[in-house]
Amino acid sequence: MRVQVVIIGGGPSGLLLGQLLHRRGIDAVVLERKTRDYVLGRIRAGVLETGLVQLMEEAGCARRLHAEGYIHDGTCIANGDDSFHIDFRALTGTPVVVYGQTELTRDLYDARADCGAPTEFQVDHVTIHDADSDAPYVTYSVDGESRRIDCDFIAGCDGFHGVSRKTIPQDIRREYEKIYPFGWLGILSETPPVHDELIYASSDRGFALCSMRNENLSRYYIQCSLSDHPEDWTDAAFWAELKRRIPADMAERLVTGPSIEKSIAPLRSFVTEPMRWGRLFLCGDAAHIVPPTGAKGLNTAASDVHYLYQGLCDYYGNASHAGLDAYSQRALARIWKAERFSWWFSSLLHRYPDQSEFDLKMQQADIAFLRDNDAQQKAFAENYVGLPY
Amino acid sequence: MRVQVVIIGGGPSGLLLGQLLHRRGIDAVVLERKTRDYVLGRIRAGVLETGLVQLMEEAGCARRLHAEGYIHDGTCIANGDDSFHIDFRALTGTPVVVYGQTELTRDLYDARADCGAPTEFQVDHVTIHDADSDAPYVTYSVDGESRRIDCDFIAGCDGFHGVSRKTIPQDIRREYEKIYPFGWLGILSETPPVHDELIYASSDRGFALCSMRNENLSRYYIQCSLSDHPEDWTDAAFWAELKRRIPADMAERLVTGPSIEKSIAPLRSFVTEPMRWGRLFLCGDAAHIVPPTGAKGLNTAASDVHYLYQGLCDYYGNASHAGLDAYSQRALARIWKAERFSWWFSSLLHRYPDQSEFDLKMQQADIAFLRDNDAQQKAFAENYVGLPY
Repeated sequence: MRVQVVIIGGGPSGLLLGQLLHRRGIDAVVLERKTRDYVLGRIRAGVLETGLVQLMEEAGCARRLHAEGYIHDGTCIANGDDSFHIDFRALTGTPVVVYGQTELTRDLYDARADCGAPTEFQVDHVTIHDADSDAPYVTYSVDGESRRIDCDFIAGCDGFHGVSRKTIPQDIRREYEKIYPFGWLGILSETPPVHDELIYASSDRGFALCSMRNENLSRYYIQCSLSDHPEDWTDAAFWAELKRRIPADMAERLVTGPSIEKSIAPLRSFVTEPMRWGRLFLCGDAAHIVPPTGAKGLNTAASDVHYLYQGLCDYYGNASHAGLDAYSQRALARIWKAERFSWWFSSLLHRYPDQSEFDLKMQQADIAFLRDNDAQQKAFAENYVGLPY
Repeated sequence: MRVQVVIIGGGPSGLLLGQLLHRRGIDAVVLERKTRDYVLGRIRAGVLETGLVQLMEEAGCARRLHAEGYIHDGTCIANGDDSFHIDFRALTGTPVVVYGQTELTRDLYDARADCGAPTEFQVDHVTIHDADSDAPYVTYSVDGESRRIDCDFIAGCDGFHGVSRKTIPQDIRREYEKIYPFGWLGILSETPPVHDELIYASSDRGFALCSMRNENLSRYYIQCSLSDHPEDWTDAAFWAELKRRIPADMAERLVTGPSIEKSIAPLRSFVTEPMRWGRLFLCGDAAHIVPPTGAKGLNTAASDVHYLYQGLCDYYGNASHAGLDAYSQRALARIWKAERFSWWFSSLLHRYPDQSEFDLKMQQADIAFLRDNDAQQKAFAENYVGLPY
């Protein structure tokens, strides 16, 4: 079998790239280690930058997103019992769209099925061969049967634990990492969200986030210890702790209910450089991870897809290598800014075990400066809605 | 002897307060531990915010500052061999004025001498009594002779090591401190400045600052180890190291010469709360220290002087305690923002011994964001020229 592009990984970045390429007549196969239902069972954030929305439009997959997504013109930052609003639309002209990553992935799978573009599920032993040559190929097995696909290019969209990044020789790869000394305990509950925008809350007891999926599906998080286990936290204990971390008037309005999902996620910043090796291009979590504060995970993946898509269009449409040659540098320039924002926003709102009294005062002053200074709010808003591609 | 206000400390904040009060007919005595010449021998920074310039005008002491000071419409930030310009005037409408603290102090001493306002030099054993009563007084000795001054209020302008802060009982005082793991080795040389604006330089070898006093007096600094001694650094070694830390084209233009002063200063962030205890009011270094990056030391002292002066005018002019009662809170609100800026700007440009590769990347991304983002530049410029009083 031969295709132009092998896309390793059937998560949102691989699927989005696949749809974009399909509409430009560039054929690609998607290889996914799990089943479609497994992928759709993953719960992830769902705050979409305008750039991602535009890519979904270009992919022809934005109908449901526009119909069912929630336009958020701003966000709320809380600090103890105080809170203030940052108005994205007034500051940048752009809102964000709240639409679950699961839903977005479902739309992309549906579009892929509709157009008959090939996807192989439950593939094992995916191996990338000769990526640094002009004739790369990928081998894998399905149901014990070995297969091979020859291709022009390979898009490594297989996440942090995937094979793509590890295929790049270690002496070429440079990795940067920060592990945060806490996790996020998150629950999903069929209750109305406490507020019509997200609330990012800093408090003496740690960080909390009030997020949402729809008018009767709320997502709440609290900073927790890395040694905590979800089963240690009853729903009652979670709600009580959340209420202590958000302003009293919001806590009073909070509607609680049974959790339908409860899990703890660690927080990590990670970047590998370069993002290209020969004909292999890394996209999304395969190349970088951000802590979830600021919701940049899916959006940084989309920014990679944008640059890779442009590069591939350049190659197949104009016989130019320029876009592909610039891919790693362009993608990383934007990624590092998103890493910076996610790291800074995490640092702003969490409590750290080794924080001095002075460090705490710097956090408070940082929050006060964001509250009081228009230029700082604008810089924040521009980061939050997404820096230009 | 009785006066309305005893000002402890004959540095720029005490002298500025004294002149301002004098012009409003409020009588004050200044007590200084050293001689006038000793105070004028101290070499300090000299970047004045507009707020300080306006206070100097109000004190009737701005003639020479306007005649001899240098208007800087912006500053240069260098990173390795790259550099960019931040245009204060375009971003905020306001420049800063480069005028040595020594010169400013001299102008204030001259004005004080001209108007005959009393200053006691070489005072020992300064002791503040009954500051928490309605009848405070200060005792001290001159030439072995003990003296006492009764007063309404005491302004503690006697610096970090002065008695004023320590007079506030420990159970009332709360102190916040950060010691930075490096120092600044600075030299003064009778050479033309390398650039017509300040250059704040980050490099793999550490921070450097190219500053100036006038067209033939330059002030240069390099980040150094806390274990370094000035005598370990020959002039040649200093110049060679400085050239390695600034962009090559600037290094080529650098005119070197013998140093006429060479010293190492530690970097510290420090704030004490509250800044008022009864009838004692702390001003400037007595209450807070900033690292020199961003030149906020003298300017934060001026902001305290502003609030205290307003409070005293309120009291003597309108018989209102409101300004004095609000002093600590108002002064601290602005101080913490200046502390944040100085800490952030120091963190942006210095190399830290415990910095990870990821941390370094965050610094680089922070610098890149400042270079590329107008809103971030505006927030920077607003801090640099001075947030509103």
